[in-house]
Amino acid sequence: MRIATVPDAEWIERVGPVEGVEVRSWDMSTPLPDPEIGYAVHPYLTSPARVANVGSVPGHRVVQLMTAGYDAHLAHLHADVSLCNAAGVHDAATAEQAVTLMLAALRGIPEFVQAQARATWLPIRMWSGLADKRVLIVGYGRIGRAIAARLAPFEVSLTAVASRPRAGDDLVPVVHGMDEWPTLLPHADVVVLVVPLLPATTGLVDADFLAAMPAGSLLVNIARGPVVDTDALLAALHSGRIRAALDVTDPEPLPDGHPLWTAPDVLISPHVGGASNAFYPRAAALIRTQLQRYAVGQPPLHIVAGPSADRSTGR
Amino acid sequence: MRIATVPDAEWIERVGPVEGVEVRSWDMSTPLPDPEIGYAVHPYLTSPARVANVGSVPGHRVVQLMTAGYDAHLAHLHADVSLCNAAGVHDAATAEQAVTLMLAALRGIPEFVQAQARATWLPIRMWSGLADKRVLIVGYGRIGRAIAARLAPFEVSLTAVASRPRAGDDLVPVVHGMDEWPTLLPHADVVVLVVPLLPATTGLVDADFLAAMPAGSLLVNIARGPVVDTDALLAALHSGRIRAALDVTDPEPLPDGHPLWTAPDVLISPHVGGASNAFYPRAAALIRTQLQRYAVGQPPLHIVAGPSADRSTGR
Repeated sequence: MRIATVPDAEWIERVGPVEGVEVRSWDMSTPLPDPEIGYAVHPYLTSPARVANVGSVPGHRVVQLMTAGYDAHLAHLHADVSLCNAAGVHDAATAEQAVTLMLAALRGIPEFVQAQARATWLPIRMWSGLADKRVLIVGYGRIGRAIAARLAPFEVSLTAVASRPRAGDDLVPVVHGMDEWPTLLPHADVVVLVVPLLPATTGLVDADFLAAMPAGSLLVNIARGPVVDTDALLAALHSGRIRAALDVTDPEPLPDGHPLWTAPDVLISPHVGGASNAFYPRAAALIRTQLQRYAVGQPPLHIVAGPSADRSTGR
Repeated sequence: MRIATVPDAEWIERVGPVEGVEVRSWDMSTPLPDPEIGYAVHPYLTSPARVANVGSVPGHRVVQLMTAGYDAHLAHLHADVSLCNAAGVHDAATAEQAVTLMLAALRGIPEFVQAQARATWLPIRMWSGLADKRVLIVGYGRIGRAIAARLAPFEVSLTAVASRPRAGDDLVPVVHGMDEWPTLLPHADVVVLVVPLLPATTGLVDADFLAAMPAGSLLVNIARGPVVDTDALLAALHSGRIRAALDVTDPEPLPDGHPLWTAPDVLISPHVGGASNAFYPRAAALIRTQLQRYAVGQPPLHIVAGPSADRSTGR
C-alpha cells in the first residue's frame, strides 16, 4: 500500500478513498511522520517553508501545492523532492473575480455600497455597463480564456493578446502578440491583465501604456501587482482619464493608508482571485487524479520542479 | 412626408435619418406642436402624464415609451392614441445588473468597498462565489433568458420557473411551472426574481418562500419591489439564514433610514437595472425600426394599449 498525506481530516473526506493508496492527515509543519509517504499535499495558504519537512528523510517524494504559483517554495525544496503545482484549480475562481471586479466597477456597485452605508437612495441617472464594451484581455492562457468564455454572452467584443501571436479559437478570431499593445489599446474600453509575472511583464503597465488607454476606460488587474507601475497608475487615476479595479497591488498587502486606497475611481479587492469556494471541489478532483496515478506508478501531473520534472506528462 | 418626434436633438442624431419620415425634436411637455405628427417618443425617465399631450389634437397617433413597463401611462392616454413599450431594449442592461448583484454579493465586494473606505487590507480568507452554485431563475421571459445566457459559462447549474411549465431551450432542459417552487427552492443556492408585477406575483416571496430557501442562499430581486414581502425579508436577513441583493425595494425609493438599509447581508442598488449606457443604442435601433415601419404604413411593433392594440404584430 502506498501512503499519501493531505492537510487534515476534512481533506481526507473531500478527496475520498482511492484504491491502492492509504490517505493520512499531515499538515507538513512537523518532520515527515513516515518514510513510506510518497505524495504529500501542502496546506493551502501556509508557509512555503513547510515543504522542507517533506525532505527531512531521504528518498524521492512528491509535494503537491494547492497554488498555481510556486516560486516561493523552491528555496525550501530538498534535491530529491518533486514539486507539483495546482494548474487549473483556480481558473474558475480567478476568472470569476475578474468579471466580478469589471461588472462591479462599471455598474457603480462601490457608489451603491457607500450610499447604503449612509442609508440613502441615490437619484436616478444612467450608469456605464459592460454591454457593447471592447474588452482587451492581456494574457491569454487558461485563465484569460476562462475570462473570455464568461464575458462572451455579455454582448461585448473581445480581443486577446499573448506573449506570441497565434491563431484564435471559438472566442476570439486571432490572438495578438504582446508587442501589438500600442495599436490595440486605443480601441479598448476595458483592459484585463492576466499575464504571469515575468521580467517582460514587470512594469508593463507604465505611463505610456496608461496614456494609450482611451479616456474613461477601465483597467482590471487580476495578474500580479508589479505588472502595473503604481505611481503611474496613481497619476492616471488622479488625472481622471482612467478607472481601475485591482485584485492585486504593488506593494501587497497594500499598507494601511497607502494613497491607492483613496485614489479616485479605483476598486480594490484583497487578492482574492483564487479564494472562493470553487477551490475545494477542483482541488479535491486534482488530488484524486494524482493519487490514482500514484497508485499505479504513473508520474504525477503538473510537475514544476525536482527530479521528476523531466518526466512530467501534464504541463 | 410623415412626421415623427424624438425627445431632443441627441435622439435625432442617435436614430439617424429614415427615408420617408421627418424626425423632429419634442419633449412632450407641451401640447402637440403639429397635427401631422403620427409617432412620438416619450422621453425616458420623465412623467407618464406627458403622454396626455399627444392626444391634445384629435387623430390616431402612436406614443413610443422607452420603458418596458407602461401601467403608469395608461391613465393619461387619450382614446385614439396607441401606446408601444420598449420590449427588449432593457434586456441586456437588466440581465447584466442581475449578474452584477449576484457576483458582487457572493464574492464580497461590499466588504471590500467598506475596507477600502477604511484604507485597510482584509486578512486572507475563503469567500463564497458563483461557480458550482445552483441558480433558480424565477420568471423566464426575455430577461430571465438573458440572465441564464450570461450565467451559463460560470460553471453553475440553472433551473428556470415561469408562470406555466413548458419545454426547455439550449440553456435549461425544462421550464418548470410557478407552482413547483416549494419543491425547487430547497435545492437553490441563488434565487433570482425576474417576474412581472402581477396579482399572482405580489408578495410571492413571503415567509414561507424564504423559509424554503436553504441556509446561506442568496435572493436577488431584479423584478419589482412588491414581489417580496419586505417584513418577511427583514426577519429572514436578521435570522442570518439568507442573504439578499436587491435592485428594487418596497417601498421604493427606499426611504432614508429604512431598516432594510442596515439589515445584515444585504446589498441594495437604486433600481438601476435598465439604467446603463446599453440602453441608448438599443433604444435607437428600436425607434429606427418603428420609423421604417411608419414610413411604409406598417403598424408599429410592441403595441400594448390603444386602438391599434389588436393590429400589433410584434408582441
